[in-house]
Amino acid sequence: MLKKLKNGNKVFLSKAITLSESGLPKDRKIINSILAKTNHTTKRTIRIGITGSPGVGKSTFIETFGEFLTKKGLKIAVLAVDPSSMVTKGSILGDKTRMEQLSKNDLAFIRPSPAGEQLGGVAKRTKESILLCELAGFDIILVETVGIGQSEVMVKDMTDVFLLLLQPGAGDELQGIKKGVVELADILVVNKMDGDKKDLAKKTKASYASALHLFLKDKNDWQAKVLACSALKNENIDAIWKSIKDYEKHQKKQNLFEQTRINQNLKYFRTCIKEDLFASILEKLTLEEDCEKLETQIAKGKLSSFKAIQKIKDLFTEKINIKNS
Amino acid sequence: MLKKLKNGNKVFLSKAITLSESGLPKDRKIINSILAKTNHTTKRTIRIGITGSPGVGKSTFIETFGEFLTKKGLKIAVLAVDPSSMVTKGSILGDKTRMEQLSKNDLAFIRPSPAGEQLGGVAKRTKESILLCELAGFDIILVETVGIGQSEVMVKDMTDVFLLLLQPGAGDELQGIKKGVVELADILVVNKMDGDKKDLAKKTKASYASALHLFLKDKNDWQAKVLACSALKNENIDAIWKSIKDYEKHQKKQNLFEQTRINQNLKYFRTCIKEDLFASILEKLTLEEDCEKLETQIAKGKLSSFKAIQKIKDLFTEKINIKNS
Repeated sequence: MLKKLKNGNKVFLSKAITLSESGLPKDRKIINSILAKTNHTTKRTIRIGITGSPGVGKSTFIETFGEFLTKKGLKIAVLAVDPSSMVTKGSILGDKTRMEQLSKNDLAFIRPSPAGEQLGGVAKRTKESILLCELAGFDIILVETVGIGQSEVMVKDMTDVFLLLLQPGAGDELQGIKKGVVELADILVVNKMDGDKKDLAKKTKASYASALHLFLKDKNDWQAKVLACSALKNENIDAIWKSIKDYEKHQKKQNLFEQTRINQNLKYFRTCIKEDLFASILEKLTLEEDCEKLETQIAKGKLSSFKAIQKIKDLFTEKINIKNS
Repeated sequence: MLKKLKNGNKVFLSKAITLSESGLPKDRKIINSILAKTNHTTKRTIRIGITGSPGVGKSTFIETFGEFLTKKGLKIAVLAVDPSSMVTKGSILGDKTRMEQLSKNDLAFIRPSPAGEQLGGVAKRTKESILLCELAGFDIILVETVGIGQSEVMVKDMTDVFLLLLQPGAGDELQGIKKGVVELADILVVNKMDGDKKDLAKKTKASYASALHLFLKDKNDWQAKVLACSALKNENIDAIWKSIKDYEKHQKKQNLFEQTRINQNLKYFRTCIKEDLFASILEKLTLEEDCEKLETQIAKGKLSSFKAIQKIKDLFTEKINIKNS
């Protein structure tokens, strides 16, 4: 399987990702042995996070951008993180027909979002999927998310560069972008610079550029870029690719590209063990139910969080002591 | 002690806060019994978070604003969260002489930041201090922080309304404001609207107002307000108070004031037990050293985070099993 994966066999890549999404111990064992062969800090690939509210044209953008990249001979993988599918247990991003051309392209691999999972679980699976795609020889990993919940921060924490797609039209019309998301972006792209929205798109680009000027450069001295394009008409897509390559150069010159990935791995490690061990503790000591009861009391305003914390700590100590004896 | 606290005795309030900062079990026992008497969702008080980079005039602002409030007969408490003091173990915000007038005011209570603590520890102590101040009859709790690290998010999570102080001068001159902090603010205040900076302050206010217009209203339909004042000349301070009261009304009308506090308590509960139990686990199973060794390997790029997580989980299971047998 590892050999077929390394040969870039898309069927086996799909199977590997399915294994990584499985919770069964025997599947985990196989996937862990494969993941052990991945190079988690390879500088060869670029991991690109893409977000934007529904209606901004993400599918069209990824289709056009993906075709553009494959024409350069680059192999691209598209992964989706969709928190709404976690709630509904049905994946709206799972519809491959959204990207009809790209899904038929030999150099492209499209994988829908795993459905019915916790955000933490999705983070883990997506991180694993990225590594598996890289193992299979993909050069560019696009990680798409709709702007709901904490998913942007999650995607930011597993990619090298973060793109925000915007709609033409500023201010109140821009319903749907969450506060704080603009701040995460390394590159902002106003899409739909075509037809009767052409001028508005240019104006929107200018507004964002001047608004961003009010904010600080980020710590690595990179000032977020604002671009405009038409994914529909395939216009100005090269400028976006150039901007991504500029960012990559900027990061690599300062040795920040690899360092960022290492920092992401460190953060990921602490977060995962904290979540995993905490969940194990709640499970092994059967504390989850106690927590939920206390939360109901807190929500009713009947119990202070301090008392609740003390109760859980007492239960924990009590149960751990029993195990000790 | 409880009685003296309820009488608003500042000496006993200080003692109670010192007890809450102590890690000794006997001190915790006393303070826990006092905290049990606090009303964690009282609607009587307003908890105001204040941030802004060094040099923006936070001390002068709090002094002037504090005097303004006490003249209305309101009792105010000033608490400080200073992450730099956690590093240096010396509290720069501890200098009471910064607020000379206010510190002599009978209706005001100023408490420096606890030094040499972890951010999580400071969050806990500050939350406890807020409740103790409210128990002692203080009406307005000002929680001040310098804009370093994660402290703004922490302060946002324990206050009802969040103020960001700004300097006159936009863009690059505004060095020191972290990305994302503007997004947290309910009210932005351009300070130093006096002397030769008067016009610049007004321009800055206009720039921020138009930049904010590009961003979304927050989920509760409150559009962040931008104001300008001179704390030094005591000008336009009443407008800030009016804006805070408007925000309070806005929140209470939608029943969000209490709900926000309850949500803060719920978040606080889960965060605290996760941190506490995780720390207990690392300690009781002596896993912290193992984690650090693995982190060194990850940082060198020699170990993937997946393998590291697996190793910790194996160790955890192994050690827990030993305890079980």
